[in-house]
Formats: sequence, structure tokens, C-alpha cells
Amino acid sequence: LATIALDAMGGDFAPVETVAGAVDASGRGVEVVLVGDREVLAAEIAKHEVDIPIVDAPETILMGDDPAKALREKPNASITVAARMVARGEAGGVVSAGSTGAAMAAAAIIIGRIKGVARPSIASIFPTPNTPTLVLDSGANPEVNATQLYQFAVMGAIASEALLGASNPRVGLLSIGEEKGKGRAIEKAAFELMEASHLNFIGNVEGRDVGTDRVDVIVTDGFTGNVFLKTTEGTARLVFSYLAEELAGLSDAARAEAMPALQRVADMLDYETYGGAHLLGVDGAVVISHGSSTRKSIANALVMARDAVETDIASRIRERLG
Amino acid sequence: LATIALDAMGGDFAPVETVAGAVDASGRGVEVVLVGDREVLAAEIAKHEVDIPIVDAPETILMGDDPAKALREKPNASITVAARMVARGEAGGVVSAGSTGAAMAAAAIIIGRIKGVARPSIASIFPTPNTPTLVLDSGANPEVNATQLYQFAVMGAIASEALLGASNPRVGLLSIGEEKGKGRAIEKAAFELMEASHLNFIGNVEGRDVGTDRVDVIVTDGFTGNVFLKTTEGTARLVFSYLAEELAGLSDAARAEAMPALQRVADMLDYETYGGAHLLGVDGAVVISHGSSTRKSIANALVMARDAVETDIASRIRERLG
Repeated sequence: LATIALDAMGGDFAPVETVAGAVDASGRGVEVVLVGDREVLAAEIAKHEVDIPIVDAPETILMGDDPAKALREKPNASITVAARMVARGEAGGVVSAGSTGAAMAAAAIIIGRIKGVARPSIASIFPTPNTPTLVLDSGANPEVNATQLYQFAVMGAIASEALLGASNPRVGLLSIGEEKGKGRAIEKAAFELMEASHLNFIGNVEGRDVGTDRVDVIVTDGFTGNVFLKTTEGTARLVFSYLAEELAGLSDAARAEAMPALQRVADMLDYETYGGAHLLGVDGAVVISHGSSTRKSIANALVMARDAVETDIASRIRERLG
Repeated sequence: LATIALDAMGGDFAPVETVAGAVDASGRGVEVVLVGDREVLAAEIAKHEVDIPIVDAPETILMGDDPAKALREKPNASITVAARMVARGEAGGVVSAGSTGAAMAAAAIIIGRIKGVARPSIASIFPTPNTPTLVLDSGANPEVNATQLYQFAVMGAIASEALLGASNPRVGLLSIGEEKGKGRAIEKAAFELMEASHLNFIGNVEGRDVGTDRVDVIVTDGFTGNVFLKTTEGTARLVFSYLAEELAGLSDAARAEAMPALQRVADMLDYETYGGAHLLGVDGAVVISHGSSTRKSIANALVMARDAVETDIASRIRERLG
């Protein structure tokens, strides 16, 4: 069932941007259901030319709420209802730009882990000119063990192949030196597991390999992965801000040419190209979007979730790890 | 004693660039002694107009050697002899672009840890338009505990104030969310220690704070710190390469203006501005330079080491942690 339940109340710009994103995704052939306050969503969808079904979910989980507690106490929150639709087979996947903690808890508790998967993992997509790089775990699991890292590698390779078009994806372990034996005890143990596996394991990779065409799947714990991704974001922003300042001093004619070039590079690195990150290891397609997601991100996230349903990522993971 | 012993045989471009760097530093008032193969160094220094004293050290530690073993087996290696000069009071500090492991081992074993310091730490300097940011540990200690993180914070604050001109340096703990309680068990424990201390602790910082004017000292374990720094390097290189490609398509006139602007930003982020990283917590000034250090880096590293001797960083650390 390729229907995607959109948590239409989640995110900084909900419901305006979430509903607009759903409209765009619908135009791209995604079957979307809007989940949230019926009255609010009906008013919002009325601004558009297309009609998208609404499933009522009058409660809201706030960013400050304790995720697991909020799930229990708010059975009619939009993310809770959306996850339940997947659990009941009424939808194949969920997209949410609301609290990441709540989306993860809803996925783990309501949709459920795939048997054999110790920890579901958030796999973020880093844009590159060729096959984008998948980075996991990007924040769901700050502290893991080597077996869990190995499972992240397996799930990442499946997703890279099915969703990003890598053939026999190259898997690298994020460490602090290329040679085997570099890193902490956990990297040393995970290296052994990956080396002995069916994976196309290329060994350790480093922070400086970001965006190069060396690796398709970068595996690390959720703490390091989160630092890694936020550092790429911060550094790119830093370079752009320095450049914008320098370009301001150019002649009008030169600036008129250089600024669009800068913009093209910024677009190439724009995280909105990918509307969110895949939560792998749960029994359905779950895409977690940035809290500041706009129409464009939401539409792209819905397409990602549809692709994850259609390529049946969950079954492939179950076959390998279940 | 402000004499700096330069491991003139260490680094990819030794002895040509190391000796040239020593000549430049000498021109900037640094008292340098070249340590290494006397014949090789005498021939090299003869190419320059100034004379710099040489201390003979005919053995060489290779990048692949086990550091501690090499120190024992090669008592006349350049890094061993240079460290011994500090231990004997014949020099105030050492600069090496050779094997980082060997330099760290020589510093810990021959020069010695400051009493009370559990682990010496490599503090790298991240360039910013204002006060540069110190990042530690940047690779010496992949696995640490909360008390050691706290000691890194103390040593980093001392170095930031004495060497980088920060007044009451703002110390941040690298984590995966700004709020207290974000991160792993170690960050939670270190947060408590720093919060209760004399430090100007601003709480957690994130990868995306890199290069902003929010924080003077970023504290983390050596694994995360190394990933963080290499990721900034990789991302900046990635953005520059995309930009260079885009700018190549501009008109000649626009390109002639835009390329120097790009170069100015690259220069601003150039790690060679700082010739190396300070090893803090040992009983002397130790600056560890990049293996690919050029004349410019080596000269800057020698100035850094001289400044560390003159501001007596080691005594300040001893006073606080000894």
C-alpha cells in the first residue's frame, strides 16, 4: 500500500507548508493522506486546487514533550494517528517534520521494529554530484555497540542500493585514520564484523572524505554522525557567508555573474533537495524531516517515503537481519 | 629559556621546508635550534643567509614505526633528541611535523606530563575572523572520561587566553543539541563538572557553531574532535572545488574579480596560518605540525612554540591542575 500518511501538524511551518508540500507531492503521483486537526487542514487544503483526504487527529505533541510519555497520553496526536495507520495497514509510510523524538518513538512503539534489528537508525542523505552519500546513524542512537554499527551498515547498504541507485554500495566506517586499527575499541570491533561480511566494505573513511565519490554509505554512531552532519552544514554556511561578504566588494558586473554561481553551489548542497532522513529498521517507511521544512522539503520527503514503500526496504532489511 | 628545538627531519618536506621555516622564524626573533642529521642540515642551512645552530640527531623515526618502541630503540632520533633538550632545560619547547604519535610519546615520556594532568591534549586552532577557536582534544585521546574532558576545558581556556587573546574565554562542550542533558553519558557528566567550575562555561555547542563568534574553546573527546576538524576541512574543500568549477564558466572579466575573492576566503580558512596544534599538559611547549607542513607552517609553528614558552602555559596549567 503506497499511501503516505503526512503528519500535517508537525514542523515550524505547519500546516501551510506541509499541506502545500502534500499538494506538490500529489502532483508527482504520491498518494498522500493529511493527518491532523480536520478543521485546520480542511481550511488549508481549500486554498489549493486539489483535494487530499484528511484523517482527523486533534491532539498535538510539542517539541518539549517527553516523546514516549506524549505518545501514551496523546493517542490522537497527528504523529500517533499517522503511525497507527501504518501499523494497521492503512498506509505504507509516514512523513513527519515534528519532534524527531516523537516520530522515532511512534515508529518504534506503534509501527514496531523489524525483528532482528536491535536499533532503528536515522539515515541522512548527503548530496554529492553523483550518487548521494548515506550517513547513518545520524542522531537516533548516540551510544551503540559494534554489532549495532554492523546492522546500520547492512541497512544503509540496502537503502543506498534501493533508493539512491548505488550498485554494490561502498560502505565505509567513519574513523580517525584510514588504516585498519585506527579509532576507538568500537571502530576496531565493527571493522572486523564488516570486513568479514557480505558488504562491499572499503574500510575506514574520514571526515575529509565528505562529498567525495569514494563512499556510498558512511557508518558511525549517532553522536558522531550528528556532529559530522551539523559540521558540514556549519562549515558550508561559514564559507558561503565569507564569500558573500567578499563578493559584495566586486564590481556590479562581476557580482551579477558570481552571485548566481554561488547560489548554484548552495543549491547543490541544499538539504532540502532531500526532504528528510529515512528511519531504517522499522516495519514501514518513515521519513523524518527537518523542523524548518518548507513546501519543497515536504514534497520531497513524501516522494522519498513513497519510494521506500515501493522498493520495500523493510522487507529487504527483514530478509537480511530478521 | 625561549629556545625552540625544531625536529628538522620531521614532515613530508623536511629538511628543505623545515630549515627554510626556521630561517623565517629566526627573522621573526625566534631562537631556533635545528635538530637532525648534522650533515644534511648543514648542507641545507648553507643555502640561506643566516646561520642556525644544529644539534646532531642521526636517527629517524618513520611514520609506520610504533611510537613508544621507536623512542626506546632510537635514542638519537631527531624528535627524541629535541624532547630531551626540553627535559634538560636546554630548550623551552619543541616543534615537530613528523609522526604525531612519536611526538606525543616523546612529549609524555621524555618531557613528562604536568603533575595532576591525566592526559595531555592536542589543541587545534580553528581560524575565525575574530578570536580563533581552540578545539580540543583533536585526536590524542580517542577515549576519555568526564574528568579528562573537564581538564581539557581548563587547559584550553588557559591557552585561549594566553595565546589567542580571548578574555575570559567562552568554553563550550561539543554535543548534539544545545540543551543541558543532550549527548551521551560522558557529555552529561562533563556538563555538570564544567557548570560547577570557575570556567566561563556556555553549555553545549554543536557542529554548526563552527567558525561563529559564539565560543572560544570547544571541548570534546579526541575521536569526535578529529572527525569534527577533518569534516570542516573536507567540507570547505568541497565547497571550494564546486565553486571553482562554477566560476570557470564565468566571463573572463568576472572570473578575474571572483577568483581572488575565492582565494581570500581560502586563505582565511587556511590551516597554515597556524603552523600546528599545541600539545597541552606536558612540562614544556610542544607544537605538533601537519605532516605536509611548508616553510610558512613551520615558521608559524615556531612562533607559536615561542609564545607558549614566553606566556608560560605549562606553569599556568600546573597552578590550576597540579
